[in-house]
Amino acid sequence: MTEKAKRKSKIAGKQSVLFTNPPYIIAGAGVAGKKEGEGPLGSLFDIVKEDPMFGKKNWEDAESELMKEAAQEVLKKAGMKSDSIRYLVGGDLLGQLIATSFGIAELNIPMFGIYGACSTMGEAMSLGAMLVDGGYAEKVMSLTSSHFAGAEKQFRMPLDYGNQRPYSATWTVTGSGAVIIAKDNHKKAGNNEADIVIAGLTTGKIVDYGIKDSMNMGAAMAPAAFDTIKQNFEDLDVKPDYYDKIITGDLGYIGKNILIDLLKEKGYDISSNHMDCGIEIYDKDSQDTHAGGSGCGCSALTFTCYIMKQLRERNWTRVLFVPTGALLSQVSFNEGNTVPGIAHAVIVEAV
Amino acid sequence: MTEKAKRKSKIAGKQSVLFTNPPYIIAGAGVAGKKEGEGPLGSLFDIVKEDPMFGKKNWEDAESELMKEAAQEVLKKAGMKSDSIRYLVGGDLLGQLIATSFGIAELNIPMFGIYGACSTMGEAMSLGAMLVDGGYAEKVMSLTSSHFAGAEKQFRMPLDYGNQRPYSATWTVTGSGAVIIAKDNHKKAGNNEADIVIAGLTTGKIVDYGIKDSMNMGAAMAPAAFDTIKQNFEDLDVKPDYYDKIITGDLGYIGKNILIDLLKEKGYDISSNHMDCGIEIYDKDSQDTHAGGSGCGCSALTFTCYIMKQLRERNWTRVLFVPTGALLSQVSFNEGNTVPGIAHAVIVEAV
Repeated sequence: MTEKAKRKSKIAGKQSVLFTNPPYIIAGAGVAGKKEGEGPLGSLFDIVKEDPMFGKKNWEDAESELMKEAAQEVLKKAGMKSDSIRYLVGGDLLGQLIATSFGIAELNIPMFGIYGACSTMGEAMSLGAMLVDGGYAEKVMSLTSSHFAGAEKQFRMPLDYGNQRPYSATWTVTGSGAVIIAKDNHKKAGNNEADIVIAGLTTGKIVDYGIKDSMNMGAAMAPAAFDTIKQNFEDLDVKPDYYDKIITGDLGYIGKNILIDLLKEKGYDISSNHMDCGIEIYDKDSQDTHAGGSGCGCSALTFTCYIMKQLRERNWTRVLFVPTGALLSQVSFNEGNTVPGIAHAVIVEAV
Repeated sequence: MTEKAKRKSKIAGKQSVLFTNPPYIIAGAGVAGKKEGEGPLGSLFDIVKEDPMFGKKNWEDAESELMKEAAQEVLKKAGMKSDSIRYLVGGDLLGQLIATSFGIAELNIPMFGIYGACSTMGEAMSLGAMLVDGGYAEKVMSLTSSHFAGAEKQFRMPLDYGNQRPYSATWTVTGSGAVIIAKDNHKKAGNNEADIVIAGLTTGKIVDYGIKDSMNMGAAMAPAAFDTIKQNFEDLDVKPDYYDKIITGDLGYIGKNILIDLLKEKGYDISSNHMDCGIEIYDKDSQDTHAGGSGCGCSALTFTCYIMKQLRERNWTRVLFVPTGALLSQVSFNEGNTVPGIAHAVIVEAV
């Protein structure tokens, strides 16, 4: 980063924030479904559940249970009770955020419900980091979830219908990830792992290239990821190699190519350090998930269980984490509207 | 307020924030539908639209247009263009926030989508005030909307069905309200009106008393309003008369009585200074709206056009503005779930 970006204000450029005293991510936890547990990252998840109903009677209650377990697990890993958390910032893909409302109600934490489609983890971590850095909270929990069957019911076809899925379609991840963001670090003595901090943010705008195919959300979201990543480079006056990894949420195979091409046109080559959570979470050859994984849980699970591990072990030092969201509903799709995208970038560092 | 609450930290008690340098609300604007324009507050709204479709082809696009006009109007009143606004914080009642996504996309402002049902304006102003006070933005726009026909389609019955509504049901307000929150005041010389600031916040938790009747949302939300208001009194160590008015969002006639009773049991009497936006916005005798108005637009319109006017004219000095939300969806209702509530309080002062 050049001196241009090192200003006294927390504000960097048009859409970014750089924290003078970056807040810590003191714990992360992920709870995954069976299919995700069988994928390449399966062994890293804190909890893998065999029962897709999570012991409940419907998909929505199942997702609430999933989120509740992620919240409980992250509290356990941090050695805290829920009354240590001043704010909860979270959301999901279901209309009116019912997975979140019913999942976290009994934690009894003041709550900001948010919706950014599959970019929600980026939005939750951005707001969480600012609430902590701004002095409004010692600790904030940011979390989100998605459930394959609930999402299919919400956005696509009833599962019983057994319709075929085009190769451009992604597979909604059944999973929930939660982090605790804190002002102070709680490192155990003798622990040699790196601490993880949120060094900055670039908040996304709604970007709409006119894509109308809800079975090709990678194409719908790639322009938003492009817009946010390009803005991050400009606001910080950095090049792609400033980051060890630039990690999008759920662009999948199609969206990844579009993103790399769009950035190349602007003179930025991220082909060697780009990674997409939707590509990492399933095995392309054996899991029949077509364009890759998607859903709020996709980036949240990958972040809490894989990306945080790479940072803790100092395999990576600086990551641009960019969850990506497609802002459609079944109603907007049925009315012939486009699928606008949004992407929120979080700069995460090992220190 | 006693010394107990006057601490150096911005944090007050368990759930509240008190700003040392309270951010200003430099402008507010409200756009209303025809029925709202015919109500007791009709003459105060910036724009009243006769056409419920707002020139669009469906209710969802109509609500997007409504929100866009409110955003444009508040920018006009503040004498600004959209590129002066660093963040937009907003949401609506429709699944996946499509009214907001499609309404504000062309403003091209970095966006945090939020959902708190009809408490959304309180959530938007809370986050907006912290983003400004924390130094992350000079100016933030907080806005929200609701549309009677879109909400009926989303949550209740198709309008064409012409079903009867119980007396406990509220009428969703067609309207949108937007405010611009700023670090610095932009008072015109010679203007004798008071400035309006956000002095503090109390962020609500999800409160569920087990109400399952979606046609009696006042009863579902009153316990959440009670919880947040009581917490505000405790966190600030104040009594009800600390505020000239305590103004809930859309409890309506039934919820108002429950709230007053619940607080009385705890030794707080707010009967003389409580007001509810849902009761103010329609005429009980002539407008056939049963328990009163509701929807994100109810508190947002009343705040931007009526409450701000009372503060500017110094008729009130300190108001506790408490938008209230019922966290249900048509899916959670059909699955037999309860209707949990949430309420976010914003302390607004004339200075």
